[in-house]
Amino acid sequence: MIRHETQIPPPEDIYPIDEWKIVETQFNPELMGQTETVFATANGYMGWRGNFLEGKPAVQNGTFINRFYETWQITYGEAAFGFAKTGQTMVNVTDGRTIKLYVDDEPFDLMRANIAKFRRTLDMQNGTLEREVLWETPGGLLVEIKSKSMVSFVHRHLGVIAYSVKVINSDAPLAIASIVRGTQENPVSEGDPRQSRGFIKKVLLPEQDSSDGMRVILNHITDASRMRIACGIDHEIETECPVQFRSRSEPDYGEVVFDVQAKLGRPINLTKYVTYHTSRTADARELRTRAGRSLDKAGTTGLYTLMAEQRNYLDDFWARSDVSVDGNHDFKIRRPKEVQQALRWNLFQIIQNSARVDGCGVGAKGLTGQGYEGHYFWDCDIYVMPFLIYTNPQIAKNLLLFRYSMLDKARERARAVNQRGALFPWRTINGEEASAYYAAGTAQYHINADIIYAMKKYVAATNDREFLRTKGAEMLVETARLWLDLGFYSEQKGGAFCINGVTGPDEYNTVVNNNLYTNLMARENLLFAAETVSQLREESSEEYANLLRRTNVREEEIAQWKTAAEKMLLPFDEKQGIHLQDDGFLERKPFDFENTPKDKYPLLLYHHPLVIYRSKVIKQADVVLAMFLLGDKFSFEQKRKNFYYYDPLTTGDSSLSACIQSILAAEVGDPELAIRYGLSALLMDLADIGRNVKDGCHIASMGGSWMVAVYGFAGFSDCNGKFAFNPRLPKEVEHLSFHLMLLRQRLHIDLHTGYTIYTLERDGTGLTIEHKGNPVELEPGTALKLE
Amino acid sequence: MIRHETQIPPPEDIYPIDEWKIVETQFNPELMGQTETVFATANGYMGWRGNFLEGKPAVQNGTFINRFYETWQITYGEAAFGFAKTGQTMVNVTDGRTIKLYVDDEPFDLMRANIAKFRRTLDMQNGTLEREVLWETPGGLLVEIKSKSMVSFVHRHLGVIAYSVKVINSDAPLAIASIVRGTQENPVSEGDPRQSRGFIKKVLLPEQDSSDGMRVILNHITDASRMRIACGIDHEIETECPVQFRSRSEPDYGEVVFDVQAKLGRPINLTKYVTYHTSRTADARELRTRAGRSLDKAGTTGLYTLMAEQRNYLDDFWARSDVSVDGNHDFKIRRPKEVQQALRWNLFQIIQNSARVDGCGVGAKGLTGQGYEGHYFWDCDIYVMPFLIYTNPQIAKNLLLFRYSMLDKARERARAVNQRGALFPWRTINGEEASAYYAAGTAQYHINADIIYAMKKYVAATNDREFLRTKGAEMLVETARLWLDLGFYSEQKGGAFCINGVTGPDEYNTVVNNNLYTNLMARENLLFAAETVSQLREESSEEYANLLRRTNVREEEIAQWKTAAEKMLLPFDEKQGIHLQDDGFLERKPFDFENTPKDKYPLLLYHHPLVIYRSKVIKQADVVLAMFLLGDKFSFEQKRKNFYYYDPLTTGDSSLSACIQSILAAEVGDPELAIRYGLSALLMDLADIGRNVKDGCHIASMGGSWMVAVYGFAGFSDCNGKFAFNPRLPKEVEHLSFHLMLLRQRLHIDLHTGYTIYTLERDGTGLTIEHKGNPVELEPGTALKLE
Repeated sequence: MIRHETQIPPPEDIYPIDEWKIVETQFNPELMGQTETVFATANGYMGWRGNFLEGKPAVQNGTFINRFYETWQITYGEAAFGFAKTGQTMVNVTDGRTIKLYVDDEPFDLMRANIAKFRRTLDMQNGTLEREVLWETPGGLLVEIKSKSMVSFVHRHLGVIAYSVKVINSDAPLAIASIVRGTQENPVSEGDPRQSRGFIKKVLLPEQDSSDGMRVILNHITDASRMRIACGIDHEIETECPVQFRSRSEPDYGEVVFDVQAKLGRPINLTKYVTYHTSRTADARELRTRAGRSLDKAGTTGLYTLMAEQRNYLDDFWARSDVSVDGNHDFKIRRPKEVQQALRWNLFQIIQNSARVDGCGVGAKGLTGQGYEGHYFWDCDIYVMPFLIYTNPQIAKNLLLFRYSMLDKARERARAVNQRGALFPWRTINGEEASAYYAAGTAQYHINADIIYAMKKYVAATNDREFLRTKGAEMLVETARLWLDLGFYSEQKGGAFCINGVTGPDEYNTVVNNNLYTNLMARENLLFAAETVSQLREESSEEYANLLRRTNVREEEIAQWKTAAEKMLLPFDEKQGIHLQDDGFLERKPFDFENTPKDKYPLLLYHHPLVIYRSKVIKQADVVLAMFLLGDKFSFEQKRKNFYYYDPLTTGDSSLSACIQSILAAEVGDPELAIRYGLSALLMDLADIGRNVKDGCHIASMGGSWMVAVYGFAGFSDCNGKFAFNPRLPKEVEHLSFHLMLLRQRLHIDLHTGYTIYTLERDGTGLTIEHKGNPVELEPGTALKLE
Repeated sequence: MIRHETQIPPPEDIYPIDEWKIVETQFNPELMGQTETVFATANGYMGWRGNFLEGKPAVQNGTFINRFYETWQITYGEAAFGFAKTGQTMVNVTDGRTIKLYVDDEPFDLMRANIAKFRRTLDMQNGTLEREVLWETPGGLLVEIKSKSMVSFVHRHLGVIAYSVKVINSDAPLAIASIVRGTQENPVSEGDPRQSRGFIKKVLLPEQDSSDGMRVILNHITDASRMRIACGIDHEIETECPVQFRSRSEPDYGEVVFDVQAKLGRPINLTKYVTYHTSRTADARELRTRAGRSLDKAGTTGLYTLMAEQRNYLDDFWARSDVSVDGNHDFKIRRPKEVQQALRWNLFQIIQNSARVDGCGVGAKGLTGQGYEGHYFWDCDIYVMPFLIYTNPQIAKNLLLFRYSMLDKARERARAVNQRGALFPWRTINGEEASAYYAAGTAQYHINADIIYAMKKYVAATNDREFLRTKGAEMLVETARLWLDLGFYSEQKGGAFCINGVTGPDEYNTVVNNNLYTNLMARENLLFAAETVSQLREESSEEYANLLRRTNVREEEIAQWKTAAEKMLLPFDEKQGIHLQDDGFLERKPFDFENTPKDKYPLLLYHHPLVIYRSKVIKQADVVLAMFLLGDKFSFEQKRKNFYYYDPLTTGDSSLSACIQSILAAEVGDPELAIRYGLSALLMDLADIGRNVKDGCHIASMGGSWMVAVYGFAGFSDCNGKFAFNPRLPKEVEHLSFHLMLLRQRLHIDLHTGYTIYTLERDGTGLTIEHKGNPVELEPGTALKLE
């Protein structure tokens, strides 16, 4: 029985098939929350939800700056020692986008307007969001409104809007008001822990405002966290029609108004530049200057160059990162081109939300919505990092540097929960634990091992030993210390090293003993720490001296880590022949799947946590995830057994499961199931499977979609730095191709039904891979076709 | 190793020995919080903390009315389905006690006054709190101030203060201002979950005020819960000195001021009557009338009669309830008379906090402080009820009626956490669950069985079958249904009935499987339900028809309850030969007792819950409590083994443990340990062992002290309605005597070293008991001496 059946996406063809675009051909007010996420544009530093330029209608008119947040004191029903104290919530910052249009004094308002034509396009090659509207005013004027906006990948502080108006059937007076406002809409939601808590009161307070020519700059400061932000707008206007403008500013509001005597058929072209600078990356006193400089530079560069740079950036991105998929059979209810489109949109959202991170992570929703309050979780390390490591390793490195920058906070956190070493926060923006519910938060100690896992993968794929020696080693020492201190040698378990009272990935089985995933991942962490520190020590390098200074690591610790790893308990049930998710998993009460109607899912919204926790029911792939991440630790037969035991117990209540279930289904030889789960991962957002896309995209499932293609169907594996392929295309996929960066060389993998062509880029140095279990030497610039 | 060693009370002889009084011979400002609890007076309906009449200095100037509370929305760091929504906090109501004295315009203020003599006495025979002060004013006047106050046991809405002033060495003008105020001091505390959360803003809002002659009445209403309260004061003054008075009132404040030309050596005697009525027991529109009527009645009755009635009430109480103890050896650091005094004070506080309950429970702190927010827990059912059942059965019945009145709310609560039947709230005032932390709250499902256990004991001791048939049966059906629905037959455990995901009494091991205490107590609950319903059905009585109407109980349910009881899993470790506190107890990580300094206790204030939960460390007696409550389910040898296994793992972090540990130590033949723990229970408050007496008394430990004497040293047992004694006086106790009400007859048990004398009251009907395992027939009016 496949629980996931309940989650198969409805066939909603609201986005017509287009391999490189997401198009909306009519105004769908009832889908507005969803499309605000789907049409979001971002660059990892700043993000714009897919709102209309008029500012409304909107579910949430949102602009987010990564790591720009407000703090607040967490209130508990009943507090206890060591509970996280300070909440962090991403602030919806100054709105710099709004452009209002008045034709013959009639305001353009999508909700009331008579719309003769509507088309919105997210162009994933150009990196732009375009809209074309034909508006028939009550007075009978036909007005064409075109816009194209983008968040620049090249200039991370910059957004650009090209706005064009034309009255088709008459002359007419019109006004264009370009606005900047400190509205700060962070709506408060209740009853769904996955949403953000929002703010009841205004927390983004005006500090300064100025207007000068066509330029307005507003400065704000957050109430409690005291973070400062400047938002500047500037304009260029180009038209044959007579035009006058005036600008003004006041605290929290600024505008530049263009009064135009529009002539029949003559376009009025307005370019609006929007820039953000915050006190996180600039001196607080210089924010206005920096905003001004960015606007100067944008004006000098000009719209057309900015657009061209954007295209170049994405051409380069796609060359490295695209996954091309094709076939002649439908994927269940989806056509191959539809799959191609969805896959590209997923990858496009990843680059949008990670390209320009710097001292930041990638939140669970990226910058597309305020769900989960903009917090960074393990989603990035485990689900997004593989894609970045193998296609955009520099971004992967930036994310690791960010984790490293949080190490001191992690040391403090370990202390705060009575442990040695370092404990990375389960959810955070600023490095402090912000989880206010330990059972499905703080108890997920596996975050430590997840971060190390990503780091190890990065080092193995890029051979960036320098990162490992100068930063990774220090992270390894402190995380290994945490594990050693957390676990213990249990007499009751024959002297095995046990880790009790933790929560694994699955949040429906909390505070358990010996979670298989945690123990396996901790073991990797311990071993990698021992290996790395040993090597450094042997080499007696400067880095080792440095490590000693920073961690005072002792020789005996290395041995202790190894022993703990060797003796690590890996729970297994002999009778059923399966690995146990945790010691007590089989003892849970069978869950009454039969009498639980579909509308009682996700379970967490309809059942007391205790009811869920005592039941044999799973939210997130847990053993199954371990079998994917540490695939070489399980035999094929064992994977099959485990997979078919746990899969029917797994609800579709988490967006983190479907991709992993798909990969394992592919691996154990169940292509039909692999396709089904794969589609679920792929369409998580475009088909709004979780019914919460309005709160932002599911960034983990996006990385997961890439993994389904690469690890699942191409059968890629990368355990311990060995790169292997075991292609297993399902019948629906007749052709699948993509690039991977392996040891700094670009490899093209081109899979067809029955054969695979490997092509190592011309300026490579040669590479050994495995194909279907056999070692293969690849020469630079040569294509190798293998059956 | 006895953990409890760390908790042995310091020898603080702040209260000189007096068998019937608690006396304070000097003003101790540093002990004020503590003495406010120790000198509290109450009657179960209303309570006055032991404050000074001047209203200050005070840690908390407190007046509480049982079940008069404010509600508020519970805020969670991260909420989830089924979490309790509405908080309830006992309100510190209108202060009617304050009397301020001005002599020659100099205010009397204990903190600044030159005190020549100070003596405060809680008289446990008269039920009064007296104070004598000799004050030397800056002007050299010697003023004698005497007061005697009481909360009437006979007139539950009434408090009385007899206040007397005399200037000894001169004539002098003086003023006495008798005040009533809506101050509502509920201070907010942070960091200690055992304290109350208090209120930041004023929640007791003035509604009405009036003054007339020497009478003032203030009406208030609580902000959110909309409960109304009237507090009235009235006065009589008797003096040979010239006196004038004036009264006035305003919202929130009223006063009657007496201006007196005091003559040398002539006393001014003021009697102040204070009354409270609330909308819980009176029509809201009649509150003023009711207050007026109470004041009229008090005035008519007069001070002396009121005092005499109080004495009569307590004479009767002590005749039924006193435990007399004597010996020639010191109890460790305490003399026998000191033990006697402490024991009486404990019993006195119980009657003070339960005598006039009606539609209310007894809070964990009674009415002596706002700790635990005035909530009712299981403390009352398990720790206080035995004393009341055997000495004051009418009060026990009232408390059971109160639990019964909450049955509908308990049905709703079961539904709210996805269960059938009824689930009584872990903590509550109004019947709704108010626990905001499920791990040590909602998960303590054992509350259901605790209430039923108390009910069964009451029925067995009183033979009140009528209560059982008309109300108990309904409680039994719904609680049994909860257990059947909560547990399940586990394949993994050979078909045994398992109850997973619950917390037993021990709050350091939470959300566990098959907590022995819970399973044993649930089994009793199921069996008693089956037995009771079967009997009712066989008798085809009207009560059965009534039960059917109310519960729609089906015949097959009876069989299901029996089967579940029969198959109930009772975890036992064959290897060590001990019962397990829960399935996973032995698998916990050993706690590092050695390296945990004394100042890191109680552990909960210095360790993250996860650290505690994964450790083999115990807060509350759990298996040991089960062995006490269900003594007939364990062999002597098993008790010994279990006791010596669990005792060293038990911290003194809960006030609920020492009494139980003492009883079991006595039972397994360890009198020295029994004395040590017994003293801990007995002196919990008087020696401020938990360092939190300022927040209110530990009502459970008070009931526990009685149990130590009766169940522990007299070896009383009452399993299944069989009354047995197995005297085991330690060498320190040469004489112990007390009365028990058994089947509506009063039995005097008089224990001496080497023999026991049983005397059944004259108008009894005869009784069978067991003495040292042998049945003994007792005839009314005859003393039987047995070795």
